[in-house]
Amino acid sequence: MITYTKNDWFPAIWHFHRSPTAFSLYRRLIWIGLYVIGVTFLELWMVDLRLKDTPTEFLSTMGILLSLLLLFRTNTAYDRFYEGRRAWGTLVNNSRNLAAYLNAVLPSDRTDDRLFFTKMIANFAFSLENHLRNDEKTAGLEPAGDGELSELTHFDHVPNGVVAQLQLRTEKLYREGVFTDAHLINLNTMLLVFLDVAGICERIKSTPIPFSYSFFIKVFILMYIFVLPFLIIDEYGYLTIPAVVAVSYILVGIEIIGEEIQNPFGTEHNNLPLSQIAHTIRLNVHELMQYYIPHEEKQAAKSNFAIVT
Amino acid sequence: MITYTKNDWFPAIWHFHRSPTAFSLYRRLIWIGLYVIGVTFLELWMVDLRLKDTPTEFLSTMGILLSLLLLFRTNTAYDRFYEGRRAWGTLVNNSRNLAAYLNAVLPSDRTDDRLFFTKMIANFAFSLENHLRNDEKTAGLEPAGDGELSELTHFDHVPNGVVAQLQLRTEKLYREGVFTDAHLINLNTMLLVFLDVAGICERIKSTPIPFSYSFFIKVFILMYIFVLPFLIIDEYGYLTIPAVVAVSYILVGIEIIGEEIQNPFGTEHNNLPLSQIAHTIRLNVHELMQYYIPHEEKQAAKSNFAIVT
Amino acid sequence: MITYTKNDWFPAIWHFHRSPTAFSLYRRLIWIGLYVIGVTFLELWMVDLRLKDTPTEFLSTMGILLSLLLLFRTNTAYDRFYEGRRAWGTLVNNSRNLAAYLNAVLPSDRTDDRLFFTKMIANFAFSLENHLRNDEKTAGLEPAGDGELSELTHFDHVPNGVVAQLQLRTEKLYREGVFTDAHLINLNTMLLVFLDVAGICERIKSTPIPFSYSFFIKVFILMYIFVLPFLIIDEYGYLTIPAVVAVSYILVGIEIIGEEIQNPFGTEHNNLPLSQIAHTIRLNVHELMQYYIPHEEKQAAKSNFAIVT
Amino acid sequence: MITYTKNDWFPAIWHFHRSPTAFSLYRRLIWIGLYVIGVTFLELWMVDLRLKDTPTEFLSTMGILLSLLLLFRTNTAYDRFYEGRRAWGTLVNNSRNLAAYLNAVLPSDRTDDRLFFTKMIANFAFSLENHLRNDEKTAGLEPAGDGELSELTHFDHVPNGVVAQLQLRTEKLYREGVFTDAHLINLNTMLLVFLDVAGICERIKSTPIPFSYSFFIKVFILMYIFVLPFLIIDEYGYLTIPAVVAVSYILVGIEIIGEEIQNPFGTEHNNLPLSQIAHTIRLNVHELMQYYIPHEEKQAAKSNFAIVT
Amino acid sequence: MITYTKNDWFPAIWHFHRSPTAFSLYRRLIWIGLYVIGVTFLELWMVDLRLKDTPTEFLSTMGILLSLLLLFRTNTAYDRFYEGRRAWGTLVNNSRNLAAYLNAVLPSDRTDDRLFFTKMIANFAFSLENHLRNDEKTAGLEPAGDGELSELTHFDHVPNGVVAQLQLRTEKLYREGVFTDAHLINLNTMLLVFLDVAGICERIKSTPIPFSYSFFIKVFILMYIFVLPFLIIDEYGYLTIPAVVAVSYILVGIEIIGEEIQNPFGTEHNNLPLSQIAHTIRLNVHELMQYYIPHEEKQAAKSNFAIVT
Repeated sequence: MITYTKNDWFPAIWHFHRSPTAFSLYRRLIWIGLYVIGVTFLELWMVDLRLKDTPTEFLSTMGILLSLLLLFRTNTAYDRFYEGRRAWGTLVNNSRNLAAYLNAVLPSDRTDDRLFFTKMIANFAFSLENHLRNDEKTAGLEPAGDGELSELTHFDHVPNGVVAQLQLRTEKLYREGVFTDAHLINLNTMLLVFLDVAGICERIKSTPIPFSYSFFIKVFILMYIFVLPFLIIDEYGYLTIPAVVAVSYILVGIEIIGEEIQNPFGTEHNNLPLSQIAHTIRLNVHELMQYYIPHEEKQAAKSNFAIVT
Repeated sequence: MITYTKNDWFPAIWHFHRSPTAFSLYRRLIWIGLYVIGVTFLELWMVDLRLKDTPTEFLSTMGILLSLLLLFRTNTAYDRFYEGRRAWGTLVNNSRNLAAYLNAVLPSDRTDDRLFFTKMIANFAFSLENHLRNDEKTAGLEPAGDGELSELTHFDHVPNGVVAQLQLRTEKLYREGVFTDAHLINLNTMLLVFLDVAGICERIKSTPIPFSYSFFIKVFILMYIFVLPFLIIDEYGYLTIPAVVAVSYILVGIEIIGEEIQNPFGTEHNNLPLSQIAHTIRLNVHELMQYYIPHEEKQAAKSNFAIVT
Repeated sequence: MITYTKNDWFPAIWHFHRSPTAFSLYRRLIWIGLYVIGVTFLELWMVDLRLKDTPTEFLSTMGILLSLLLLFRTNTAYDRFYEGRRAWGTLVNNSRNLAAYLNAVLPSDRTDDRLFFTKMIANFAFSLENHLRNDEKTAGLEPAGDGELSELTHFDHVPNGVVAQLQLRTEKLYREGVFTDAHLINLNTMLLVFLDVAGICERIKSTPIPFSYSFFIKVFILMYIFVLPFLIIDEYGYLTIPAVVAVSYILVGIEIIGEEIQNPFGTEHNNLPLSQIAHTIRLNVHELMQYYIPHEEKQAAKSNFAIVT
Repeated sequence: MITYTKNDWFPAIWHFHRSPTAFSLYRRLIWIGLYVIGVTFLELWMVDLRLKDTPTEFLSTMGILLSLLLLFRTNTAYDRFYEGRRAWGTLVNNSRNLAAYLNAVLPSDRTDDRLFFTKMIANFAFSLENHLRNDEKTAGLEPAGDGELSELTHFDHVPNGVVAQLQLRTEKLYREGVFTDAHLINLNTMLLVFLDVAGICERIKSTPIPFSYSFFIKVFILMYIFVLPFLIIDEYGYLTIPAVVAVSYILVGIEIIGEEIQNPFGTEHNNLPLSQIAHTIRLNVHELMQYYIPHEEKQAAKSNFAIVT
Repeated sequence: MITYTKNDWFPAIWHFHRSPTAFSLYRRLIWIGLYVIGVTFLELWMVDLRLKDTPTEFLSTMGILLSLLLLFRTNTAYDRFYEGRRAWGTLVNNSRNLAAYLNAVLPSDRTDDRLFFTKMIANFAFSLENHLRNDEKTAGLEPAGDGELSELTHFDHVPNGVVAQLQLRTEKLYREGVFTDAHLINLNTMLLVFLDVAGICERIKSTPIPFSYSFFIKVFILMYIFVLPFLIIDEYGYLTIPAVVAVSYILVGIEIIGEEIQNPFGTEHNNLPLSQIAHTIRLNVHELMQYYIPHEEKQAAKSNFAIVT
C-alpha cells in the first residue's frame, strides 16, 4: 500500500510505471502500437480506404457508452476495495472493544486467561491474513498457552479455529462463574464479528465482477481501439500513432487498475496493508490488556504505511 | 460461475460466445443484420431517401440518454447479483458462528444434539439452493437423526421447515437446562439470520426490474438501431452493415447480460455457485463441530470455482 | 405486477401500450404532435424563421444535462420502488421467524394462543395492505379469537392496532410464566419490526421526490421539445414531425414511468403484489404453526405473479 | 411541503414561480439578462469580437463536466433531504413501538405513568421540531404530570431533556418492580432511538456540502454563462438573449433548488412537514395508549399534506 | 469549517481564493500558463504545426471520460468527508444517550462516579480529536477523579485508554451491585460505539483513494491540458491562453478539492469542526448529568461554526 502527498506528482508518475500493473499495461500498449503503425503505413502509403472521412460523432456516442461502462467498472472495483478496507477496520474496532471489555471483566489473578485472550485476538487477524493470501497457516501467530497453536494447525480454515477456541474458553469461564449472564450476552456481540469479517473478505476475494461484464468491457475496448485509427488518420497523419497509443494507455489502464483493485488482499502496491493492520491489532490488544509488547512490534505496526519511495 | 485471470482475454472471448446468453444474442443480431442489409441495398441501389444528410449530433444526444439508461440497467442488475452474493455470504458467516458457538456450549456427551445441529445447519443451505432453483426438495440434504428429514418433506417451503426444527430443538434444550437464559438470547441472533437470507434471495428472484423500465430500454434500443442505418449510410456505404451490427452487438449485449445477471440463482455461467457454497458450509460446520467429513465432500467445496474453460 | 421473460419483446411492447401509464403518455404525445405539425407547416409554407441554421451542439449540451436529470429521476423513483419491496420482504422474513419461534416456544396445549398468533401475524400484512391502498379497514383479515377483530375496527390505524394486540398477548403470556425473560427479550426484536415496516411504507407513500425537482424536470422537457422542431426542421423537412414525436415519446415516457414507479403501493401494472405477498405470509405462518390452510389460500399466494397476459 | 398529482403540470409551474426560491432565481436572471443584452448589442452594433466563430464542441465538453457536477450537487442535496425524512420516519416508528410496548407492560392502574409516557413521547417530536426550526422552546408541548414541562425549560437542549425524563421515569419504574429485567432490556432499544434521530437531524442541519464544492459549482456556472453569448451570437443574433436566459434559468435553478433542499427542516415549500408528523405521532401514541384525543388534533395530523393550492 | 449563506456568492469567491487549497492551485496554474503562452507564441509566430485542424470531437470523447473520472473522484472524496461527519455525529448521539442513561441509573449520592462519567465521556471526544490531528495527547481533557488523567498518558492510543477506564468503572459498579444485569447489558451497546467511531475515523484518515486511481486522474489531466492548446489555437489565437488557463482552473481545482476533502480531520477550511463538536459533547453531557458548566464552555460549543468571515 502506498500513500502519496499532495504535491508529489512526478515521483508518483515514476513510481506507478514500475509496478506490475504498469508492466502488463506496457505489454498491451506494444501490441496496440504495432497494430496502429501497421494501419497507418498501409493507409498512407498503399491502399486508400474509404472509411477515413467518416463522421467522428458516431464514434463519440460509442465512446460515451464505453466511458460509462468504465465508470461502472471503476465504481464496482473501488467498492470492493473499500468494502475490504471497511471489514478490516471493523476487525480493528472489534478487537479493541473486546480487549477493553475483557480487561475490565477478567480478574487480574486470572493471568492464564488474560494471556490467552490477548494472544488469540491478535492471532485471528494474522490467521485471516494468511488465509486470504494463501500464506503458511500459522505465520505470525503467537502461542496463547499450552498447545492451542498446534491444535489450530489441524484446522483447514484457521480463522474458524481461532474463533472456536475463543468460544470454548468463554464458555468455560461462564461455567466457572467468572462470566455472568450479562457478561456472556455482552461478549456475544463481539465474538460474532470475527467470522463476519472473515466471511466478507472471502466473499470479496472469491467473487469478481461477473465474467460477462468484465469480458464485454474488454471486447468493447478492443473494438474501439481497432476502429479508431481508420477514423482519425486522414486528419492526423503520422500523429495517429501517438494519439491511438495515448487513448489506449488511458482505456486499458483504467481496466487494468480495476482488475488490480477489485481484489484488495494481494501484495501489490495498491493492496491493503493487512500485515500492518494485524500488527496494529496486536499492539492495541496488548496495551489494553496491560501486557508488555517489544519495541519491534510497535515498529511493525507503524512502518511501511505512508511510505511513497 | 466462472472466474478469469488477468491475461486471458482470448480464451474469455471464445468462451463467452458459447454461452446461452451469446446464442440469444446471435439470434437478435441475425435479424438486425437482415434488416440493415435490406436498408442498405434499398438506399444504394434504388430509392434515395432524404434522411441521409441528417445531422448526427441529434442522434448523439439520444445515444447519450440511451447510454445512461443502459448504465442504470447495468447498475440495478449488478446490485441484485451482488445482494444475492452478499446474502449467501451472510449465510456462510452465520453458519460458522452458530457452529462455533454450539460446539462450545453443547457438552460433548450430547452427541445426538451435536449431530443434529451439524447436519441441520448445512441442510439449510442445501434446502435453500433447491428452493431457489426449483430442484427436488431434499436433494443434497443429510439425515440429522431419526425422521427429521422425512418430516421436512411435508413442508411446502423446506427452508422454513429446517428453521422450525432448529428452533424446536433449541427450545427443548433450553427446557432441559442445557441452554441457559444467556445462551438462548445469544443463539437467537444467529437463528433469525437463516430466514432473513432465504427471504432476501426469494425477493431478488421474484422481483425483476420494473417491467416499464425493462420494456422502455428495449424499445429505445430498437428505435435507435432502426434509425441508425439511414443516418450513416451516405458516408459509410456498404460499411453500414458491419457498423450497425457492431453497435447492435454492444447495445443488445449489455441488455442481455443485464437480464442474465439480475437473477443470480440460476445455473448459467454468470450465476452464483450456490451448490459449492453449500458444500463449503457443510465442510466448515463439520470441522467446527469436530465431525469427520469424507474427502469427496472437501472436493465438492473446492472444485468448479476458479475454472475458466 | 408483471414479470416478463427474456424473449418476449413484442408481447411486452403490446402490453405496455394498454396500461394507464401509456394512455397518459398518448394524451401528451397528441398535444406535442399538434404543436410540431403546426410549427412544421408554418415554417415550410409561410414564414422562414432564422433559427433553423442554429448549431445543434448547443442543443446537445442541454440534452446531456436533461439526460442526467432524467437519470436522477429514474434512480430516485427506482430506489423508492425497491425500498418498498425490501420493506415487504422484511415483513415476510420477520413473520416467518416469529412463527417459527412461537411454534417452538408455545406449548402445544396452548391452542388459543397458538391460533391467536397464527391469525394475527398474517392479519398484520393484510391490514398494512388495506392501509396503504386505502381499502376497507378489515378486508382480508381473519378472526383470531373472540372479539379481537371487532376491537381492531376502533383503531384509525389498524396496523398499529394489530401490534398493540400482539404486545398485549405477549405480555400476558410473560406474566403467566409461559414466556421467560429470555423468551421475552428474543421476541422483542421480532415484534418491533412490524411497525418499522409499516412506517417505511407510509414514508415512501407520503413523501414524493421534492416538488421543485419534479417540476424542474417537467419544465426542462417542455422547453427542450418546444425548441427542438426549430432546430432540425431545415434538415428534416416533414420528417421533423415523427422525429419530434419519437423524442417526446422517450423523454415524456421516462418521466411518467418515474412517477408511476415512485409510489409502488398502488394497483397499477408496475406496482408491488402486496395482496399476494400477504397471502404468502398467511400460508407460511400457518405451515410453520402447523395449522391447516385451505387450498384456495395456497393458490392466492401463488397466482397472478409471473403472469404476463 | 407540497405534493402534486400526475397531471397537473400547469398549476405546478404557476405555483413554483411564486415560491421564495423562485424569487431569488428571478433576481439572478435579471442580472444575467442585463449582461447578455449588453453583450449582444455591443457585438452586433459596435465591435466585432473575433471569438464568435469559436467551435462550440469545446464548450460542450465543459458543459458536460458542469452537468456532472450539477448531478453531484443534486444527488448530495437530495440525499440530505431523504436522510432527514428517513430520520423522522424512524421517529414515528419508534414512538409507535414504544407506545404499543408500554401499553402492554404498564398496568392499567398506573394512570399517572401511562399519561406521562403518552404525553412525553409526543413531546419529544415537538421539542425536536422547535429545536431544528429555532422556534420557542416549548411550543406545542403538553404537560405530562406536575412540573415536568417547566423543568424542561431549564434545558438548553430540550430534546435531551425529554429523553432524560423518559430515562428517569423508566428507571424509577424498574426500581419499583413494575419493569422487570427483560422489560428494561427491551425498552432500551427504543429509548436510544430518540437522541439518534435528534443527532442525525442536527448533523444534516449544521453540515452543508463542503464549501469548496458549493463554491466551485457557482464559479463554474458564472464562467459558463459569461462565455456563452460570445459563442452563439453569430448564429443566434438577437435570439442570443432568450437563449442565454433560458440556459441560465436551468443552471442557476438546479443550483438554487439544491441549496433549498439540502436543509429540509425549514418552512419553505419543499421542506419536510415536521409539524404535521409530530401531530401524527401524538395521535398515534394516544390511540395506542388508549387516551382520548380531541378532533382538532386529528385534523392537524392530516391537513396541509397533500394540498397543492 | 465554513458555512455560507445562499446569497453570498462574491464573499465566497473572495474567501475561497485565500485558502491554502487555492494557493496550491495558483502554483499549478502559473506553470500551465507559462506552458500555454510558450505554445501559443511558437505556433503563431514560428512553426506551423499540422495538428491545428484536428477534429475536436475526438478531444470531446476523452473529455467526457475525464469528466466521469473527476465525478468518481469527487464522489469518493465526498463520501469520506461525509462518513467522517457521520461518525462524529454518532459520537454525539452516543455520548448523549450514555449520559441520559447514567443520569437515571446512577444514584444521586454516587457523586464520584457521576463526575467520573461526566468528565470521561467528554474526554473521549477530545482525545479522539488529538489522536486524529496528532495534537498533544491530553490537550483539552479534564481530570475525572484522582489520577485517571495521568494514567491515560501511559497509553499510546489515548482513546483506547479512555474506553478502558470507562469499562473498568462500569464493571466495578456492576460488582458493587449498583448496576444490575439489565443495566450492564443496556450499557454495553453504548460503550462499544466509542471505539467504533475511533476506528472509522482512523480508517478514513489512513486509507486514501487507491494510489493508481489518484495518479491516473492526474496524468489524464496533464495529458488533456498538454494537448488542448494545439487543438484550439487555430480558432482562438491569443485567446487560447485564457481559455486553457480557465479549463485548467476547473480541472485542477476539482482534483485539488478532492484531495483536501478526502481527509476531513485536518484544520483546513473545509474540514470538520472537531473541536467544536467535542465542546458540544462536553456541554450536553454536563447538562444531562446536571453538572454546572462555565459560560466560556458554552461559547466554545457554539462559536466559529456558521462564520463565513
